[in-house]
Amino acid sequence: MRNIAFFGLGNMGASMAINLLKAGHVVSVFDLVQSQVDKLVEQGAMGAASDKQAVENAQVVISMLPAGKHVKSLYESILNSCNENTLFIDCSTIDASEAKELNSIVTQAGHRFVDAPVSGGVAGAAAGTLTFIMGGEAQVVEEAQTILKGMGKHCFHAGGAGAGQIAKICNNMLLAVLMAGTSEALKMAMDNGLDPAVMSEIMKQSSGNNWTLQNYNPVPDVMPNVPSSNNYEGGFMVDLMNKDLGLAASAATQSNSLTPMASIAKSLYHLHGLKGNGKKDFSSIFESFCNTKR
Amino acid sequence: MRNIAFFGLGNMGASMAINLLKAGHVVSVFDLVQSQVDKLVEQGAMGAASDKQAVENAQVVISMLPAGKHVKSLYESILNSCNENTLFIDCSTIDASEAKELNSIVTQAGHRFVDAPVSGGVAGAAAGTLTFIMGGEAQVVEEAQTILKGMGKHCFHAGGAGAGQIAKICNNMLLAVLMAGTSEALKMAMDNGLDPAVMSEIMKQSSGNNWTLQNYNPVPDVMPNVPSSNNYEGGFMVDLMNKDLGLAASAATQSNSLTPMASIAKSLYHLHGLKGNGKKDFSSIFESFCNTKR
Amino acid sequence: MRNIAFFGLGNMGASMAINLLKAGHVVSVFDLVQSQVDKLVEQGAMGAASDKQAVENAQVVISMLPAGKHVKSLYESILNSCNENTLFIDCSTIDASEAKELNSIVTQAGHRFVDAPVSGGVAGAAAGTLTFIMGGEAQVVEEAQTILKGMGKHCFHAGGAGAGQIAKICNNMLLAVLMAGTSEALKMAMDNGLDPAVMSEIMKQSSGNNWTLQNYNPVPDVMPNVPSSNNYEGGFMVDLMNKDLGLAASAATQSNSLTPMASIAKSLYHLHGLKGNGKKDFSSIFESFCNTKR
Amino acid sequence: MRNIAFFGLGNMGASMAINLLKAGHVVSVFDLVQSQVDKLVEQGAMGAASDKQAVENAQVVISMLPAGKHVKSLYESILNSCNENTLFIDCSTIDASEAKELNSIVTQAGHRFVDAPVSGGVAGAAAGTLTFIMGGEAQVVEEAQTILKGMGKHCFHAGGAGAGQIAKICNNMLLAVLMAGTSEALKMAMDNGLDPAVMSEIMKQSSGNNWTLQNYNPVPDVMPNVPSSNNYEGGFMVDLMNKDLGLAASAATQSNSLTPMASIAKSLYHLHGLKGNGKKDFSSIFESFCNTKR
Repeated sequence: MRNIAFFGLGNMGASMAINLLKAGHVVSVFDLVQSQVDKLVEQGAMGAASDKQAVENAQVVISMLPAGKHVKSLYESILNSCNENTLFIDCSTIDASEAKELNSIVTQAGHRFVDAPVSGGVAGAAAGTLTFIMGGEAQVVEEAQTILKGMGKHCFHAGGAGAGQIAKICNNMLLAVLMAGTSEALKMAMDNGLDPAVMSEIMKQSSGNNWTLQNYNPVPDVMPNVPSSNNYEGGFMVDLMNKDLGLAASAATQSNSLTPMASIAKSLYHLHGLKGNGKKDFSSIFESFCNTKR
Repeated sequence: MRNIAFFGLGNMGASMAINLLKAGHVVSVFDLVQSQVDKLVEQGAMGAASDKQAVENAQVVISMLPAGKHVKSLYESILNSCNENTLFIDCSTIDASEAKELNSIVTQAGHRFVDAPVSGGVAGAAAGTLTFIMGGEAQVVEEAQTILKGMGKHCFHAGGAGAGQIAKICNNMLLAVLMAGTSEALKMAMDNGLDPAVMSEIMKQSSGNNWTLQNYNPVPDVMPNVPSSNNYEGGFMVDLMNKDLGLAASAATQSNSLTPMASIAKSLYHLHGLKGNGKKDFSSIFESFCNTKR
Repeated sequence: MRNIAFFGLGNMGASMAINLLKAGHVVSVFDLVQSQVDKLVEQGAMGAASDKQAVENAQVVISMLPAGKHVKSLYESILNSCNENTLFIDCSTIDASEAKELNSIVTQAGHRFVDAPVSGGVAGAAAGTLTFIMGGEAQVVEEAQTILKGMGKHCFHAGGAGAGQIAKICNNMLLAVLMAGTSEALKMAMDNGLDPAVMSEIMKQSSGNNWTLQNYNPVPDVMPNVPSSNNYEGGFMVDLMNKDLGLAASAATQSNSLTPMASIAKSLYHLHGLKGNGKKDFSSIFESFCNTKR
Repeated sequence: MRNIAFFGLGNMGASMAINLLKAGHVVSVFDLVQSQVDKLVEQGAMGAASDKQAVENAQVVISMLPAGKHVKSLYESILNSCNENTLFIDCSTIDASEAKELNSIVTQAGHRFVDAPVSGGVAGAAAGTLTFIMGGEAQVVEEAQTILKGMGKHCFHAGGAGAGQIAKICNNMLLAVLMAGTSEALKMAMDNGLDPAVMSEIMKQSSGNNWTLQNYNPVPDVMPNVPSSNNYEGGFMVDLMNKDLGLAASAATQSNSLTPMASIAKSLYHLHGLKGNGKKDFSSIFESFCNTKR
């Protein structure tokens, strides 16, 4: 059982904090949206009047915020109010270089830091089945893991500080490539008269096999209970994929990495978003290969 | 047991014909390279003096030739010498439109046709573990399958005539996308200091999972017994991938399909081949993302 | 003055035939659409009851048809009815390999052939300011030129049979690259607060200078009297650019040429057409880089 | 006549400072490489013992440094030693966001700032024929122009602070697209048997016309006195184009601009550089479309 200060009670964060309470931790929460704080207090959390108050007794600080600048600004505000040797776990998806900067800020102040971006979405946060991809020192990562397991199913240790962010965006960058590539292959088969369900089955048992064919077929009505069979609602939004592809492009520029496949996938998703599809599930990229004018 | 005329005793074809003999079929062979015919005769095949002689008693004609024009020229030569209702099985990888044309030629002459391109390579041909992807009428496909099973492990029925070719190149087109996309994601992770084995493991258990990570990791020494750990020798050559990507581009042009991901993968493989890597395994595309000048 | 049989009285063809009449030639016309024939007869042409009748006295056969198959079918129909040593000039934009095939058919029958695709559009056809890009033997091209000059301003001799088609699609392929590349550069400048007119002027005087900046700025209201300043109406339709990019892709596949820039331009134009913009001018690709949802 | 402090005496900078002397200005120079300072003193410049000393009497500060961090570090060092209302002109090619940051630093200290990246290369610097693309307030730009004219032929005012950098990289990004697109079009024509000189001429007179065809043909021996006719030596190096494409990618990420054409051009140049061509002229991208293995 730990004393945890939790910041960022959005759709994901609120569910995560509730699971920490269920796991028996003492959780202080602070958020600019008071109604979200109230909701957590009802579940047993302690509501703090300020970010500084939230960390008063905390051994662990967990953040789940929209962008790197929010995390940085939070850390700068609370750092001097924190107890000695506090463990900072940032679950936000942010630029890898920002994660490294946060690590410097935190460790120079005598604390410990782990970047631990999540995948699994709102549903995974509610169900406590998130995946955490962590960057940091082995010992610190191990300790963070004991806490994160209350909110998720899988924890990976990708490498040093920032490595969690890099691993997450490399994975999501590849996911965009898989989804766009699978979509165009299935559409081309259909354009030649093949049944997408038959084609999907053949590729699943061949060298074209990939996560999207197994779990997330982009063609409507090939697979039940996936966004493509539900008007591309739910799932992982095009806007969020575009955010991750932007972070990937930024990281690639910084490390001077060559990512031609991801670049074209990024262009396709960007074009798709510009045409008003930002709130649809990311498998709707299949639609961009189809004649949608009637 | 069937009487089979087999044409095309290259590396793949010779092994396939031997497996037909082992399965108990009577096999007549003809090839322009006499030494290949002799090799088969040693294994129990009947050597024919001409293509026409080879089909004299045949109920089934199987071809395994380099390109569509060779198959067409063979068929035009033997068609009138064939027995009534002969079953033509073309295992060559050719243009889908050529396969449809072969189907017309054969069926108009009163015979039956199946296109059945293979995957699995020279090793699979020798071991009898090939995969056949078939196009044609259900009944004909079913009959062909009883024979092909002597040479392979998996048979898929993709659709009508030509569908076998389409399904094969759609799969291989997607494979090129998976291999290039996985390579650049792993390289980017490495450029940021991550261990490719760790990154591969994380993506295998996440949404980046695909056939290349499971069976064919492109980074040297991440996986044993794959071409990347053996100087990119063996496996599936860049030149052959380029052939398949050319067939895919041709089919896409004909069906007016939009394949941006495959187009860029094709450019990358083309550039890679132009730099003298045509005989390397196709996973060597990973190297094109690396600084190879020292 | 020559006796000319003219086939293909569409928007372009009708204007071209009228200009031949104005230049003093005797022109026989045949078309499946009788009203178009009538229109030409009013202008002084002789209406023929069949394609064969049209060539009865012809020394020259000019065709302006939608696709290679139409030209081939016309030639097969009239070839035996033609006078000795007839000069065939095909102004249609078709596959280069088809043009070479037409050349074979025509020369083997003892006639002469020039492929002479045009650029300049409907306006250029009416004004007699078309550009012809010709492929064929030097002497034949020279003779053809004396006739074509009645319909156009520029004639280029690109090389042997088929070279006219190759040169035209290489040019138009590059044009698509220029238009898409210029559009994205201007949009990026605008996204950073720059005035597109100022940016256009700077690039025109720098190394970014190209035909689209000089004659056909894609940003609305930078230049007067261009399609972008008129709701992208008029000009050269997206559908026609897509046709040419398809011919280019087909030629590239046949000559095993590597065209990564054109491939991505082709994908962008294809996506743009799929969203209902096929009838707009091709400079409307600029819009695809903009947020069109409000 | 002005008192000018000049920083950055590399190949470009030294020539630029010499031209300022020739124009009659008083120039103080400081550089970490003493031999470069000595060289300028020989030409009439005053050598300073430190950056602070160099600005003692300066009304104008001109910098020509490799990257934004160098300029920032210089400004931070000298800002408090500068005379009131000093005019800062940064001619370095740096990130547009860095240029905006420099503008803030300088103007908040009561001085004036113009970003004025150059094009024209080492030859243009020596000949005094550079082009300057400026960002800043109209009045300040106008004053800067009177000084820059001593070193160049053309001055453009692109917009507010940072706009010079944006305009320069948008132009160079488009240039990369023009060069790669023109190269592949010419190579495809050649693959089909056309003469590159003939094809170049046709496109120059058609809608494919662009700066590279007019001034910098990438095919060897089509044009005299260009790098392609001199083993791709001289000119603008691939490494420098890659630097500019990196700045463009970074700016595009920041302004969320969609640049698919530039992305693929960037990948092509990156691949080309990785194969050991970084020091060649950027028109050598033509070679990457050719089979260079014999």
